[in-house]
Amino acid sequence: MSLKPYVSLITLGVEDLERSVAFYRDGLGWPVSGASAEDVAFLRTGGVVLSLYPRDKLAEDARMEPNGVGFRGITLAHNVREREDVDRALETAVAAGAKLTKPGEDAFWGGRSGYFADPDGHLWEVAWNPGFPLGPGGYPELPE
Amino acid sequence: MSLKPYVSLITLGVEDLERSVAFYRDGLGWPVSGASAEDVAFLRTGGVVLSLYPRDKLAEDARMEPNGVGFRGITLAHNVREREDVDRALETAVAAGAKLTKPGEDAFWGGRSGYFADPDGHLWEVAWNPGFPLGPGGYPELPE
Repeated sequence: MSLKPYVSLITLGVEDLERSVAFYRDGLGWPVSGASAEDVAFLRTGGVVLSLYPRDKLAEDARMEPNGVGFRGITLAHNVREREDVDRALETAVAAGAKLTKPGEDAFWGGRSGYFADPDGHLWEVAWNPGFPLGPGGYPELPE
Repeated sequence: MSLKPYVSLITLGVEDLERSVAFYRDGLGWPVSGASAEDVAFLRTGGVVLSLYPRDKLAEDARMEPNGVGFRGITLAHNVREREDVDRALETAVAAGAKLTKPGEDAFWGGRSGYFADPDGHLWEVAWNPGFPLGPGGYPELPE
């Protein structure tokens, strides 16, 4: 298998790197790695690296036209361990400057979830899913 | 800290779930979890869960208008352990039906990288970065 099943990094294209670093590092309290450079920030998480990089340079790197509007068709999720953590985490994000697109609410699948958009509109779901217990890395360890 | 530094899931909005499952499961060989249901597939990776879900339902879940075109401003990366693995992995993706947006080439930062788009246009970078040794989960373990 030449493309093993894993995700190494997620890169968020950003308009203003300083603003985004302030949001994730100062607002959410996420650690920025010393491997970061002038035009890129690497956030250390429990697993996949979250990278912040200028949006136009990201498009150029992927050989794409940089124009794009509307729903991006991709979301990230941050699952929490307790039901009441959902609203608390959303409040933290909003206090850090995120836009709440969906307040926490009970979900048809038995948990609770809400969404926020980061300063560049990247969407994060905050979810409590009792059927998906979280491992130490912060991601659910799903059955085969 | 009420929003700990981790990413639990990445959800890719897809137009045709069957086509996307075929791409990731059969084309790339990635394992689908038995926790998947009729309208959602969960791929087990070395860390963060990769979820495939109908694009319109994803927009609805996030309370967003579903329309969106052009560059999405976000990419995923799959890092490999050896320089020559980059082109091999890109070939696997293309053979599975991906569109190559950037062939493998040496990068200014000392590694090698290329990009492919999955059947819904979600962008994946395939990269070899000698400065970012990969841990067992397939993600680089960056310094503090």
